[in-house]
Parts: sequence; C-alpha cells; structure tokens
Amino acid sequence: MSKKIIDHFRKFIEVEPKDEDGILDFFQMKTFAKKENLIDSNTRCKFHFFVISGCLRLFFINNKGIEQTIQFAIEDWWLTDYFAFENQTATEFTIQAVEKTEVMMISFQNQERLLLQYPKLERYFRLIYQRTYSASQLRTKYLFDFSREEFYHHFNDNFPKFAQRIPQHLLASYLNMTPEYLSEIKSKKRS
Amino acid sequence: MSKKIIDHFRKFIEVEPKDEDGILDFFQMKTFAKKENLIDSNTRCKFHFFVISGCLRLFFINNKGIEQTIQFAIEDWWLTDYFAFENQTATEFTIQAVEKTEVMMISFQNQERLLLQYPKLERYFRLIYQRTYSASQLRTKYLFDFSREEFYHHFNDNFPKFAQRIPQHLLASYLNMTPEYLSEIKSKKRS
Repeated sequence: MSKKIIDHFRKFIEVEPKDEDGILDFFQMKTFAKKENLIDSNTRCKFHFFVISGCLRLFFINNKGIEQTIQFAIEDWWLTDYFAFENQTATEFTIQAVEKTEVMMISFQNQERLLLQYPKLERYFRLIYQRTYSASQLRTKYLFDFSREEFYHHFNDNFPKFAQRIPQHLLASYLNMTPEYLSEIKSKKRS
Repeated sequence: MSKKIIDHFRKFIEVEPKDEDGILDFFQMKTFAKKENLIDSNTRCKFHFFVISGCLRLFFINNKGIEQTIQFAIEDWWLTDYFAFENQTATEFTIQAVEKTEVMMISFQNQERLLLQYPKLERYFRLIYQRTYSASQLRTKYLFDFSREEFYHHFNDNFPKFAQRIPQHLLASYLNMTPEYLSEIKSKKRS
C-alpha cells in the first residue's frame, strides 16, 4: 500500500509511525486505465479519491449534449462530487481517468470512521477543504471576469506544465471553448 | 456576547458548557449598517465572519466596472475571501452588509489559536468547509449548464424567502443579469 498519502498528511499534521498501518487500512488502492470511469453519473457517489499518480477529471453532460469538464485532479489532489459523497446520493457528474491513474480511495463510511478513530486528521481535511474552497471561490470570480482567452492565459501562466500535459480537447472543455478556438488562441501572438 | 455561534457549533460537535466563554473570547461581535463594508477590496483580509443576524454579500468590480456579487451569507453562514484570509493578503473582493448585520468575527491568528486550544472545532470547520465547497462545486455546474433564466428559477425554487428578501438589483447581480432582465423574467409566465 502506497505511503504517499501519509507523506501528504505529514505536510499538514503529525502522524505517528505506529498509526500508519491503521490509517491505511481504511483505504483501497486501485489503478484505472486511461478513459476508465471511476464513478458514473446517475450512480451513488461512494468514494473520495486521492491521486497517487496520473490525472482525473470531473465532468457532466451539458444541455447541448457535450462533456463539460469542471475540475482536474493530479498527484496529491483529492476529488469527488462532494455533495453526493456527503449525502451518499447519486451524482450528476462522471469522474474519469485522463491518463492511467493510481488512486487511494475511501468510502464515506470509512472516512467517517477514520476521522473518529484518528481525530487529528480532522485538521488535515479542514485545511484541504479550506484550500480547495478558496481556489473554487477565485475560480468563480474568473468565470465571471475573464474572457475565455484571458482564462486560457491565466491557466497557462499558472499551470504551464499541466496545460501541456492534458489532452487539448479536455483543456478546451475545461475552458469552455471548442478545441478549434483553443488552437486559434494558442497560435495567436499574445496582445 | 451572543451564544448563537455556540449553538451552531453544537449542531455539528459537542461543546462543554465550561468551554463556552473561552471559545467566545477569540471572537469580536460587531454590527454593521446597511451598505457598510466589512472588508474593502485591496486591503488585507483579516477576518472570517459568522452572521448572527442580517445578510452579507461578497462582490468584485468586473472589467465593465460593474459590481458582480458572487456570494451571499445569511444567519448561521460564514463568509470571507478564503484565499486572502488564509494567506493574509489583500483581497480583490469587497464584503458588504446588504441590510443591518450583526456578526461574530475572528482574525486569522485567533482562528488558528482557537483551533489549537480547542481541536474539537477542527471537525466543525471541516464539516462547514465540506458543505460550502460542495455547494460551490454544484454552483460551478449551474454556471455552465443553466441559462440565466433557469438560474433564476432554480434559485427562486430553492431559496424562495431569500429571493424575496434581498434587493432585486443585488439578486440580478448574483444571477449575472441586469435588473431589467430580472423583472422581465419574473413577469413572464413560466414556460
């Protein structure tokens, strides 16, 4: 079982070596092939995923029948549909592997049990959610404030390696533009 | 000092009566007049606000020079610019009282101290952030998926009292439409 998640906990809190195995027991490790779905839309959202290696995306089918990607998760990031996970209901989203991806996954019940048994981890998840939420709050601002071209440049300036790593049609989907429009922006000299 | 915030903690965690005063010592209570700013843009985001009574909004000035509201907070809701709060940097947002509003406010340093002294509250904030983040994730979906008219109906169906309580030009700002367009939608028979 990968201890990479324990390393990540230790960036935020102390974890005693004697607790490592007990904590890891609550998780399952699994590898998904490129384009394999971790969670299908209209099914119960059972798991919270931590990416060990690879990349995930969360998308939904919009009212034009097109896949709209709203989030990516790479190494050391968490992902799920949080509303459906917390309420253990069906999700409107699909979570899919963008490339071959290895995850640590934990069910809702196990996450609750883990936190009751190791309450120190409440702080870890509080800090993770705080950061994730703060990023989401800024992203909402960008959605209102940026043109799609500005959004691309912002993304590319802040995450240059990531912008190159992901398939360009998925980046276009995340930026709410067609792949053709993305190519056009990239080939244009920046004004 | 209002114990309403302690009541809210108790919806999620146990708080022993002997700890109440010690917890409340970390907070300041303050009342803001209608349209008064709690935090101005381009100033350091010092506080996290819990609404005792009234209503707050968070907005920024968009590239057309118009106030774009992206969040409201009513009784029992928390609000700040989380990125600027966590990093103790200047915010790009303004937080303003929509009506006369009484808040409990806590500085970043005090929130950290509070959580170190009463680690049980980590669970409370973890659950609060988890819910806030899950709402934000769904809102991102709506921003992509709903027409502005659908967004209004969704908001009105889910928060009917709130949709009536806030000034209509602010509701229009939140829904990213002009007040005139909002009136038009409201006067139209729903298709």
